Amino acid sequence: MRWIRFARNGAGSFGILEGETVLPVRGSPFAQWEKSGEKLPLSGIKLLPPVLPGTFYACGLNYAGHIKEVAAQTGTAMKLPQKPEVGYRANSALIAHGDTIVIPKDATEKVQYEGELVVVIGKKAKHLSERDALSCVFGYTIGNDVSERTWQGQDRTFWRAKNTDTFKPMGPWIETEVDLDRLVTRVRVNGKEMIAFPTNEMHFGIATYLSTMTRYLTLNPGDVVWMGTDGDPANIKHGDTVEIDISGIGVLSNPVIRES
Amino acid sequence: MRWIRFARNGAGSFGILEGETVLPVRGSPFAQWEKSGEKLPLSGIKLLPPVLPGTFYACGLNYAGHIKEVAAQTGTAMKLPQKPEVGYRANSALIAHGDTIVIPKDATEKVQYEGELVVVIGKKAKHLSERDALSCVFGYTIGNDVSERTWQGQDRTFWRAKNTDTFKPMGPWIETEVDLDRLVTRVRVNGKEMIAFPTNEMHFGIATYLSTMTRYLTLNPGDVVWMGTDGDPANIKHGDTVEIDISGIGVLSNPVIRES
Repeated sequence: MRWIRFARNGAGSFGILEGETVLPVRGSPFAQWEKSGEKLPLSGIKLLPPVLPGTFYACGLNYAGHIKEVAAQTGTAMKLPQKPEVGYRANSALIAHGDTIVIPKDATEKVQYEGELVVVIGKKAKHLSERDALSCVFGYTIGNDVSERTWQGQDRTFWRAKNTDTFKPMGPWIETEVDLDRLVTRVRVNGKEMIAFPTNEMHFGIATYLSTMTRYLTLNPGDVVWMGTDGDPANIKHGDTVEIDISGIGVLSNPVIRES
Repeated sequence: MRWIRFARNGAGSFGILEGETVLPVRGSPFAQWEKSGEKLPLSGIKLLPPVLPGTFYACGLNYAGHIKEVAAQTGTAMKLPQKPEVGYRANSALIAHGDTIVIPKDATEKVQYEGELVVVIGKKAKHLSERDALSCVFGYTIGNDVSERTWQGQDRTFWRAKNTDTFKPMGPWIETEVDLDRLVTRVRVNGKEMIAFPTNEMHFGIATYLSTMTRYLTLNPGDVVWMGTDGDPANIKHGDTVEIDISGIGVLSNPVIRES
């Protein structure tokens, strides 16, 4: 099942996507909902990020190839994480499928995409075993963890490197039926494939992350966990369009401009 | 004016506090509201964190005395921040005035309070000048940035050191009329004063922080910015009660237990 969130009467409404048809619901898939009985064409609605998380988690360094590249680019030593530690991102940076990534005037040329699988939590969960960890998952969507590498290397936190307005495209929707081991993540810039990697070949898997996190914290319906990216991302610039394609979920596409 | 948030019909409702009387409102002080006409005694309601922020910012190292102490305790070099950089905390860790701070079983003895002024944003804001920065502020509340120092020193992020469930008491309410330069922050453990410091003697002031942040990000109504703490916090343990008292705002009090 595919869940979307879209703009309606100045707010966000949820709907179920069947092919190119949206079936709006009253309520929320993270609480109670019922179909309104309407049918809308997907082409006629404005998509929003498919959920506004209560807490926005990001796993960061979680694919060996990417860890090597970040170390090289930021001038730090390469080190595979010894344990699954999670970071945070800002809701204020979220944009939807189709929205524009805006590079600030004073950013360097080193603004890069990061194609990521996003886990969407559906049930309140604490102290999950690894075996049961995926039971709290509602579905999956796609994230682009846009990053300014100079700031990432210089600043004490990722506040502007990764949380500048528009730097967190998420969408286009949440897919609830996913076979993790069959997923492939592909990133395209202006239609050219930049990388393809098996989505589930993570340094620490989703179950390990969720189980470890819930030793200390409670996951809540609507929370999201961005699972990290692989490879050596390239710079993106004014006029580009970036697509993150995860087979079985969809394509998250965003144009890029530089603030003038 | 004092704004509270309290439990009602399984959800959070806002109200205005006049003395010991709560005047419930329909709606939210961050959007539209009107008084319901009811009057409830403060003693009869369950307080909630006064706002659930869209994005939860924390300034971290922002008082010279505290920066020195964190360096000593985590075995790192003391370094005054050269620029106002902000970090993030997790909504999942928030608790209200009166709620219990629960120290996890496997935490060390180095669990400490940090008494902080919390800025609550009232207006959407981007590209604020320093002179206009405070125009986006709705009011002020109090935070206790509970921290496990061993994890803070060892982990790559603050995910469990500062974001373990219950580690972010916030409240008791939002005070909208505040004279920043007259505020004094006092921390008491079991009634004994541990520290008192002028709240507004920050390394970087509130206006500098908000102005710098909004060069890159949009602040939204209900967002909170925790401004950091001063001094050399002490350990807290099972059976303690911690009070953060900021003159003119109120007292945030929380008992402490260790998970058995």
